[in-house]
Amino acid sequence: MKELPIGFIDSGYGGLTVVKQSLKQLPNESIIYLGDNARCPYGPRSLMEVRKFIWQLTHFLREKGIKMLVIACNTGTAAALDELKAVLPIPVVGVIASGSRAAIKQTQNNQIGVIGTAGTINSQLYTRTILEKTAKVKVESLACPSFVELVEEDRLDESSTQPHVNEVLKPIIQSGIDTLVLGCTHYPLMKREIKEASGSKVHLIDSGVETINEVSMLLDYFNLSRTAEEQEQDPASQIYYTTGEIEPFKVIAGKWLKADDIVVRQCRIKGEIIVEATNCES
Amino acid sequence: MKELPIGFIDSGYGGLTVVKQSLKQLPNESIIYLGDNARCPYGPRSLMEVRKFIWQLTHFLREKGIKMLVIACNTGTAAALDELKAVLPIPVVGVIASGSRAAIKQTQNNQIGVIGTAGTINSQLYTRTILEKTAKVKVESLACPSFVELVEEDRLDESSTQPHVNEVLKPIIQSGIDTLVLGCTHYPLMKREIKEASGSKVHLIDSGVETINEVSMLLDYFNLSRTAEEQEQDPASQIYYTTGEIEPFKVIAGKWLKADDIVVRQCRIKGEIIVEATNCES
Repeated sequence: MKELPIGFIDSGYGGLTVVKQSLKQLPNESIIYLGDNARCPYGPRSLMEVRKFIWQLTHFLREKGIKMLVIACNTGTAAALDELKAVLPIPVVGVIASGSRAAIKQTQNNQIGVIGTAGTINSQLYTRTILEKTAKVKVESLACPSFVELVEEDRLDESSTQPHVNEVLKPIIQSGIDTLVLGCTHYPLMKREIKEASGSKVHLIDSGVETINEVSMLLDYFNLSRTAEEQEQDPASQIYYTTGEIEPFKVIAGKWLKADDIVVRQCRIKGEIIVEATNCES
Repeated sequence: MKELPIGFIDSGYGGLTVVKQSLKQLPNESIIYLGDNARCPYGPRSLMEVRKFIWQLTHFLREKGIKMLVIACNTGTAAALDELKAVLPIPVVGVIASGSRAAIKQTQNNQIGVIGTAGTINSQLYTRTILEKTAKVKVESLACPSFVELVEEDRLDESSTQPHVNEVLKPIIQSGIDTLVLGCTHYPLMKREIKEASGSKVHLIDSGVETINEVSMLLDYFNLSRTAEEQEQDPASQIYYTTGEIEPFKVIAGKWLKADDIVVRQCRIKGEIIVEATNCES
């Protein structure tokens, strides 16, 4: 069981920010990733539809064999975490509780901001999670539906991007928050732009970093951690699947994970299930 | 189940450093504490004897009703965590894995120091836990058997204390570590003296803080967290038991937790079990 990889699922590239943190903090662990680029973004979809997609991604990785599942996607967490946790026999981790805890720990003026996709913000899951933990804070939230495309379409270097980000974030920054939760795993990929727009007084919470802290604790708690010795004998591996095209995934993942030998495989959505592209085409 | 307190057990006062962090980070949670002051320190005892004591403390709190157990004592964690986790139907958290993870995250020069009681250091549990997680670091460890008494006997303000602490810590500080794990929950009570002896370049890891992060995550993971609304309707309570004398416990706990209305009750060791003093004397 310990030898199996940790499974990460996401609507596209965003979950790679969580993987990046895993490679840093948990070097002994193998990972298997599935990005649903073909159907990205999830943000504007109904939670019911997202829940169905998350189950499809989960079944695919479960068939490959995983010891833990990370829903590395805020919309997916909002839609399906409770259900997956209740049903699956392996530990399941989402990204919302970790980010909420970190924000409560961080804020000094008790004013927390949360940005995310329309799906995540409309679900109000961050606001509810934070307010359940402490009645002392005020939570401002804002849907930033255009941000995911900026990342997925690799448009961050365009000259119109920074003014757009400034404009979108203006109301939440002006509300007086001192802590801003990046409530979408795509957003750490545009941390520079968000930091520029929010100024030095606002502390950004990267849900990926916080999520991997939780993964690390749960691996230990359930005696699922691989040791350095095991890593020496049988080095950890990484495999990336996408429902989209291989080449752009390779380029963006390589850039973000700072690696040029990434193994990317393709899978296809076939009716209600996801299958490897090679099988599909044979 | 959610309404039950979190149980904390320790050989004496040390676990109060973990409780202090719980009161700060988890204000909605009730706590029940049992300090085995009558048999403190645990450090010089055999792990088998400590394991027996930990089971006695655990049975006492389990009869009172707890939703999670924190072994807020490094010697106790080294002796009994694995066994308790395997047997009890509630989550059990120790202090060693949390401190180890935090140290690995913190160190820049990959040289970590660990100080603790003779029991904890001889068990080598910190060293093994850290080296299992990463082969890159070097771990220096040092038993500081005199430190627990300095705290338990309230002798930190004596003029001989600081020179003694400097002298004891000299070898481990000189070994070149940049991170020092306070591998005994009593040590945060003498953080000022340890900081003075170790200098500004050494980062201290307080296992209490790290342990409560883990408690917070597990409460969420197992849906055991109390909400702010529940806290409003039914405020969280704190009860402290000691196998020692009530008055000195009240003074030291009050000083450390910065509270003067602490409810302290006494219990007695009667053969193989621990019972409330009132029952015992009736």
